[in-house]
Amino acid sequence: MPSLSQADLDDIYAFAVELGKEAGDTLLKGAQIRIDGGAGDQQIEKDNAVDIVTKTDEDVEHFIKSKISAKYPSHKFLGEETYSKGSSRDYLIGNDPTWCVDPLDGTVNYTHLFPMFCVSIGFILNGKATIGVINAPFLKQLFSACAGRGAWLNETQQLPILRNPIPPMPPNAPSKCIFSCEWGKDRRDMPDGNMHRKVDSFMNMAAEIGGREGKGGMVHGVRSLGSATMDLAYTAMGAFDIWWEGGCWEWDVAAGISILQEAGGLVTTANPPPDPAHAPIEDVRLGSRLYLAIRPAGDAPNESGRQGQERTVREVWRRVRNLDYSRPGA
Amino acid sequence: MPSLSQADLDDIYAFAVELGKEAGDTLLKGAQIRIDGGAGDQQIEKDNAVDIVTKTDEDVEHFIKSKISAKYPSHKFLGEETYSKGSSRDYLIGNDPTWCVDPLDGTVNYTHLFPMFCVSIGFILNGKATIGVINAPFLKQLFSACAGRGAWLNETQQLPILRNPIPPMPPNAPSKCIFSCEWGKDRRDMPDGNMHRKVDSFMNMAAEIGGREGKGGMVHGVRSLGSATMDLAYTAMGAFDIWWEGGCWEWDVAAGISILQEAGGLVTTANPPPDPAHAPIEDVRLGSRLYLAIRPAGDAPNESGRQGQERTVREVWRRVRNLDYSRPGA
Repeated sequence: MPSLSQADLDDIYAFAVELGKEAGDTLLKGAQIRIDGGAGDQQIEKDNAVDIVTKTDEDVEHFIKSKISAKYPSHKFLGEETYSKGSSRDYLIGNDPTWCVDPLDGTVNYTHLFPMFCVSIGFILNGKATIGVINAPFLKQLFSACAGRGAWLNETQQLPILRNPIPPMPPNAPSKCIFSCEWGKDRRDMPDGNMHRKVDSFMNMAAEIGGREGKGGMVHGVRSLGSATMDLAYTAMGAFDIWWEGGCWEWDVAAGISILQEAGGLVTTANPPPDPAHAPIEDVRLGSRLYLAIRPAGDAPNESGRQGQERTVREVWRRVRNLDYSRPGA
Repeated sequence: MPSLSQADLDDIYAFAVELGKEAGDTLLKGAQIRIDGGAGDQQIEKDNAVDIVTKTDEDVEHFIKSKISAKYPSHKFLGEETYSKGSSRDYLIGNDPTWCVDPLDGTVNYTHLFPMFCVSIGFILNGKATIGVINAPFLKQLFSACAGRGAWLNETQQLPILRNPIPPMPPNAPSKCIFSCEWGKDRRDMPDGNMHRKVDSFMNMAAEIGGREGKGGMVHGVRSLGSATMDLAYTAMGAFDIWWEGGCWEWDVAAGISILQEAGGLVTTANPPPDPAHAPIEDVRLGSRLYLAIRPAGDAPNESGRQGQERTVREVWRRVRNLDYSRPGA
């Protein structure tokens, strides 16, 4: 398996942070063109909003890809745009050093100029998300991490943000937890379709204790931002306790998973195994399209942080339904 | 009815903006104390997070109230904290100049340090929200408006943010709209309770066209931030197209409604009238606890912006259920 020294990784990390900053600036410029109404063309918004967004998306991916291939010609590259236009639907990440990039996560938000959009740059080594940079330029929030170097907000605030000490998971989680989830694009109105499975699960997590035939979790709040990447960033920060989602892709999560794991978070599969109370809790496969993330957790008198996270995973699994998202080759 | 000159209003507006900035700083300081782990006390987070949040909430309300009573002793004051501790559940807003303040909206977010929290300062004259200031200090976003002076983000960017020209409502709204909604605190698992009525409504808005027995609205996205005030701010900005909510109070919405209306948005009742296709669309009553807001909309070739907003209101009413939140005296 390929290996890189910490010095190599540090170089790649510094490069990735700069890439993220420049790409974020480009996203912001694309937004500003729309805010300004284009170069003197008063009709630009009505006619061309979606075109401008698509062009910005493609421009940013092209920019990142060309910068990487100039600096690290041996590295592989996987981006949303190149994948969508490629002929293979296979899972393309192996052991080689691979960049996994979403030039614009939260595209719908960006189109509407809701600030929860970002560029997501992940670097994967031996199949593991090792470096992550997420830049949400409208929010002026840059999340970054490198294995062994900690996870950071705006390069100065270490994550999780509450760390003196890191709070343990609540004793009765998911009660007192903020639960982050997304409605997604699959809106088919079928009794056993993904939308109904998701909403059943949301209801179980939200309902009063004792409700929903004993599945009520009475979470402290339910949040939906419309960006898997931002969901992961806020889980790494500790602002969200639980993120549960199906349907997104490796470029949506590679950077976020790297940051979450480096901050001390746990990410496993969204779909409950046959024996949720006792099944081993394994790190998620990057391309599985099914994700359950738990925030970094401190130790409590009676359990370690990891034990608290695993307890929370099992309590979520008990309340959610299996989602139906397949992935060739993952 | 009392009246104030535009110069009087301008003075009050400038005062309110300064108040919002100072209150936001205090919220940020309260967060920083928790981030720093308290004044050398390593156990502060575990023991006292909720206490610190409650104290910050009360401190900010006390600060705002005392500043107002020093500068405008004849004005009335209504804040969440004073209301909660008062003996009357009546609707307290009349024609007199009245400040309506939520020192901390998005309390759950603040407790978890999810950035969607803010201070909300509204000034009401003759029962109408006339001045509004919303400061979300972690996001560095200050929203403000005064009747006749426009609505603004960070005092320099006029709202709605896309205004060259302002986009009309989509022809098939709620399709292509971002729909903002909240799960709220009423989580009782009763078939006809508010949680089930809300989620039924969310599902109708989200489902594919033709689904849900013809009620499927196929919105572009569903968002839940956990702050009614921020929901209104982003609707005024144009980032959200539709906000539908029941259960919040006048201090949650006074500033937001002022900003939304000054930006050109529409706000009416959440609950569909008996004849939703033809009922008159009236401005919401501030204390009604039932809100449906539509973003500012430009004219299209075939309809005015207002007509597009009203069409959208009727399309939402067709898809949502009546919510059960009563309000003494409203």
